[in-house]
Amino acid sequence: MKRFFEKRLAFGFLAARASGGAVAQVTETPPTEVEPVLRVPAEDYRTQWVQIGAFSLLAENPAEGAREIHTVHVERSALEAYLRDGDFPNGTKIVKEAWSTRTEVLTTGTASYADKLEGRFVMVRDAAGTLGSGARFGDGWGWAFFAGDETRMTVTGDYKVDCLACHEPARDQGLLYIQGYPAVRK
Amino acid sequence: MKRFFEKRLAFGFLAARASGGAVAQVTETPPTEVEPVLRVPAEDYRTQWVQIGAFSLLAENPAEGAREIHTVHVERSALEAYLRDGDFPNGTKIVKEAWSTRTEVLTTGTASYADKLEGRFVMVRDAAGTLGSGARFGDGWGWAFFAGDETRMTVTGDYKVDCLACHEPARDQGLLYIQGYPAVRK
Repeated sequence: MKRFFEKRLAFGFLAARASGGAVAQVTETPPTEVEPVLRVPAEDYRTQWVQIGAFSLLAENPAEGAREIHTVHVERSALEAYLRDGDFPNGTKIVKEAWSTRTEVLTTGTASYADKLEGRFVMVRDAAGTLGSGARFGDGWGWAFFAGDETRMTVTGDYKVDCLACHEPARDQGLLYIQGYPAVRK
Repeated sequence: MKRFFEKRLAFGFLAARASGGAVAQVTETPPTEVEPVLRVPAEDYRTQWVQIGAFSLLAENPAEGAREIHTVHVERSALEAYLRDGDFPNGTKIVKEAWSTRTEVLTTGTASYADKLEGRFVMVRDAAGTLGSGARFGDGWGWAFFAGDETRMTVTGDYKVDCLACHEPARDQGLLYIQGYPAVRK
């Protein structure tokens, strides 16, 4: 587990490792079985859902390009509901994949692309507060992070500690970084 | 059209403008009506097709983060055929969107995300060489670039000049940068 405990930041659920490479989980909660409603979806969301956006995170040494690429996936029906109603229906899952990258100098320039899946963030819309009651639920969502390929064992304990540090700045837009999602921000 | 003609590189269909900002088309072909088979798809490929990968291109001043994000889309049935057969069926369209970015310092670090659509590359699989015969067809594909929101008027003249400069290094993998597509490279 060492790799997940290397660095703790005041603000940051994820932090770049000193090497600038992969994602590091900074919570110190040992993996526990997550509530079923918070599991990584069993279906093939990469091909069956809609990827609504991608974030590129710069390496600590910027010349190295992107250290991570994050891709964000929701069900098509949930996206359509959001565009119609301005909110995701109760039970909507948002899956954000965190990939470490490979970077090459290609003809277009220094190009980084997804290499290894470092982990996945799941948020489940719980506007009514009825989907769960533990420390992974609150502020209208359920929250969990899963390292690597894990789908059930989460290292998220209390979302207020592990998740809000990064999401709090987006509170006035429903705790989501809407600006990164071209399909949603229109 | 000035923005599209600012900079010509020996290798490069696209080049960063001196400002490091947006995509610049470097071919000097005036826009012409494209063959119908090469048009940007009329359907909503962003939500109906599969996004198979994203490339992050570093700014000329690396501290500025990514200058462009490219996202690549194919039909689900074409992806399934590729995974089964190792090739895309004749007529498969690959759409690569080139977005200029916005970059913010967020809790996760310097984060860049898609801002403005600068243009789209369309490749159509033409293994049999039957879909077209002009200078935009060859090497098993049809090729066209469309600036901004354009879907029919292309600035691509001869694909050998405008497209192969960037794709030639990927010849041994079917002229595609397969390494950037996690779903395909498995």
